[in-house]
Amino acid sequence: MRDFLPADKSRRERVLAVIRERYRAHGFDEIETPVMEEYGRLHAGIGGDNEKLAFNVLKRGLDAAALAAAADQSTLDVAALADLGLRYDLTVPLARFYASHRAELPTVFRSIQIAPVWRAERPQKGRYRQFMQCDIDVIGDATPRAEAELIVASLDTLDALGLEGGTIRINDRRALDAMLDVFGFAPDERPGVLITIDKLDKIGPEGVAAELRDRGVTPAAVDAFAEFLGRPQTLEYHPYGERQIRKALPAGIADEVVAHLVTLGETVAAARGDAADIPLVFDPFLVRGMGYYTGTIFELAHPSVGYSLGGGGRYDGMIGRFLGQDVPAVGFSIGFERIVDLVSDADEADGSAVVLVHDRDVPMTQLLALKARLVAGGSRVRLEQRTKNLKALLERAAADGYTSFATVSAATTAAELELKPLN
Amino acid sequence: MRDFLPADKSRRERVLAVIRERYRAHGFDEIETPVMEEYGRLHAGIGGDNEKLAFNVLKRGLDAAALAAAADQSTLDVAALADLGLRYDLTVPLARFYASHRAELPTVFRSIQIAPVWRAERPQKGRYRQFMQCDIDVIGDATPRAEAELIVASLDTLDALGLEGGTIRINDRRALDAMLDVFGFAPDERPGVLITIDKLDKIGPEGVAAELRDRGVTPAAVDAFAEFLGRPQTLEYHPYGERQIRKALPAGIADEVVAHLVTLGETVAAARGDAADIPLVFDPFLVRGMGYYTGTIFELAHPSVGYSLGGGGRYDGMIGRFLGQDVPAVGFSIGFERIVDLVSDADEADGSAVVLVHDRDVPMTQLLALKARLVAGGSRVRLEQRTKNLKALLERAAADGYTSFATVSAATTAAELELKPLN
Repeated sequence: MRDFLPADKSRRERVLAVIRERYRAHGFDEIETPVMEEYGRLHAGIGGDNEKLAFNVLKRGLDAAALAAAADQSTLDVAALADLGLRYDLTVPLARFYASHRAELPTVFRSIQIAPVWRAERPQKGRYRQFMQCDIDVIGDATPRAEAELIVASLDTLDALGLEGGTIRINDRRALDAMLDVFGFAPDERPGVLITIDKLDKIGPEGVAAELRDRGVTPAAVDAFAEFLGRPQTLEYHPYGERQIRKALPAGIADEVVAHLVTLGETVAAARGDAADIPLVFDPFLVRGMGYYTGTIFELAHPSVGYSLGGGGRYDGMIGRFLGQDVPAVGFSIGFERIVDLVSDADEADGSAVVLVHDRDVPMTQLLALKARLVAGGSRVRLEQRTKNLKALLERAAADGYTSFATVSAATTAAELELKPLN
Repeated sequence: MRDFLPADKSRRERVLAVIRERYRAHGFDEIETPVMEEYGRLHAGIGGDNEKLAFNVLKRGLDAAALAAAADQSTLDVAALADLGLRYDLTVPLARFYASHRAELPTVFRSIQIAPVWRAERPQKGRYRQFMQCDIDVIGDATPRAEAELIVASLDTLDALGLEGGTIRINDRRALDAMLDVFGFAPDERPGVLITIDKLDKIGPEGVAAELRDRGVTPAAVDAFAEFLGRPQTLEYHPYGERQIRKALPAGIADEVVAHLVTLGETVAAARGDAADIPLVFDPFLVRGMGYYTGTIFELAHPSVGYSLGGGGRYDGMIGRFLGQDVPAVGFSIGFERIVDLVSDADEADGSAVVLVHDRDVPMTQLLALKARLVAGGSRVRLEQRTKNLKALLERAAADGYTSFATVSAATTAAELELKPLN
């Protein structure tokens, strides 16, 4: 967990404001849920591996007797000690929120959630125990329009952050399942096979084939799949041509799945307006980790980095777990902690931010009157008593986004204030 | 703990944005700390009664044996089970932050913290277990200039939220202590006496005198104090006149304390620019609950409500607890949860927010192209499929801040889109 100093915090808030504003422009509405959810809800099997990483909150009013009872087992009964936990994602809380408030929400509900989540990860580079997630979700729309709205809003947000050139890799869990079926992998082999396919970017087609053989899965399936993987043209296609998508997949994928992918591509193309440069690629080997995905899955790539900047997918089954009635849902999460490091500081500086460097003997009344006058005129103003090392003082202010300074002596009046640029 | 639906969330974010922008304009810099702090730090005696209300986080990797050990006492050893807790205020984390990062911060550090805190309160009206705090603090300045900057920034923020007319009641803990001394209360009687004085607004001077008699504190002190309380002119004074402040206090208050109050008043007056209408009142009976205050204390009042909208004070001793070296500090906290209910919805609506109500048969490509065009033109756009009850659909959109709508059929082109005002 990290402290954020002013320069970092300011950059984070600026990026969050852009994300919030763009998401809202695309018709999404922000909601907020408490950071704690009930222990049982966080451990209902929906959160996958993240459930194990939840921080659990001790019940209030526990006494030694309750504790002794909880310990009187061969295994520790955490549920007897903890009634709440910190959320590890925003999807479980959203499903709970939607089930609680459905009557107060539009038929198709487009939600924004911009909020921290917590996971008790072992400390390692780029992994934090508290981090921000920026999720948009469409609940109540089973058509590819939902995916298209998410993708268009996410790309527009990336553009607005100065990160033009983002690409969305798309696949469909149903196509993936059908593909494994077509090649003859047994149903119980699939989870392991998917874990290996997910490494394609890192270990290449030969590496995937070798690892599958090591796994000891059906040899004929591995051979057929390896040949398919070896075809150079299979990796990337614009998904808005049915012929191309069909070509990238083995025969035997349901028309419904292909049609969903084709319409999605056409719809994003129509929204982006430039059919020659649609930032979508169809990747029949995209897997995505979470078990709850049921249809389209996608991942956001950017030429400046080798890792994903976000992603999401359709999870039509999850809301039903809370509501007792299936409702289609699809979400997209921007990897805020990764994106915030890529955003340029260039336009960090406020329009007018002034440091008033004053002598020790300037009366407070004079100083605060000068400051109030500049603030009322639209400036951001910091008072600094002059130090021996004026240069260091000014450099620090510039790092904090201040753009100009003026020196103030006991004789300085507002009319005499002379602003000089900081840099 | 509460869920926030879109209309409420939007209002909260709008108010937070104004607070953040105004605080920054006054030269404060925002920081962020993790929501969890170490258990020992949260229970070091600084947090007063709030320490008892902390949510504690279960240690990871606890086993049944550790649990049995923790239970093997007559009293439950929470520290053996919990290593972290959710913060119950932003002051303890700020002191810890400052001690950790002092070398990277300006000599006088003006911090903003806008973040949630948690207290395991019993549910009751107006009390929440998760709520936002908006704190500004000045660390490293022992002069009244620090208090003046806090007060001016807070009043300006209130003005910017459309809540003009706020008043700051001011007192000094040292004056309060000296006053009790002057009237002859014994040192060990003071905490109880202060609790009673704090009720003056509710129970009046006679009520205070009666309760003090019930407490059984030094009778002569109660008599002298009751007579002082009964004088009508003692309650409210502009603090920028030494004569007036002296008049509001019994004889025997240190010159230094009076001078601090006088300079503070003069400085706020200079910043506000209108000496005839300075929104400060000196209230020699203002107490404020927290035990860590060491000097000036203040409370924000507004004519629209009978309760305080915020407050704060000087806590020169606390940073030293973490740093091992005393550093003066003073803070002001705006009562966000109270203020957000007072802010008018009048300017909630976005400049241009459009609902596109479309027939079922409009192709997705057409819809998303129309939407993208409006979004690119600066609008916020929501798609809604036409329902039988169009009126209800439009009313809901208006409640969510949308300002106009257009109907879209399969034949509608961008040129033909006709925007009509909502409501």
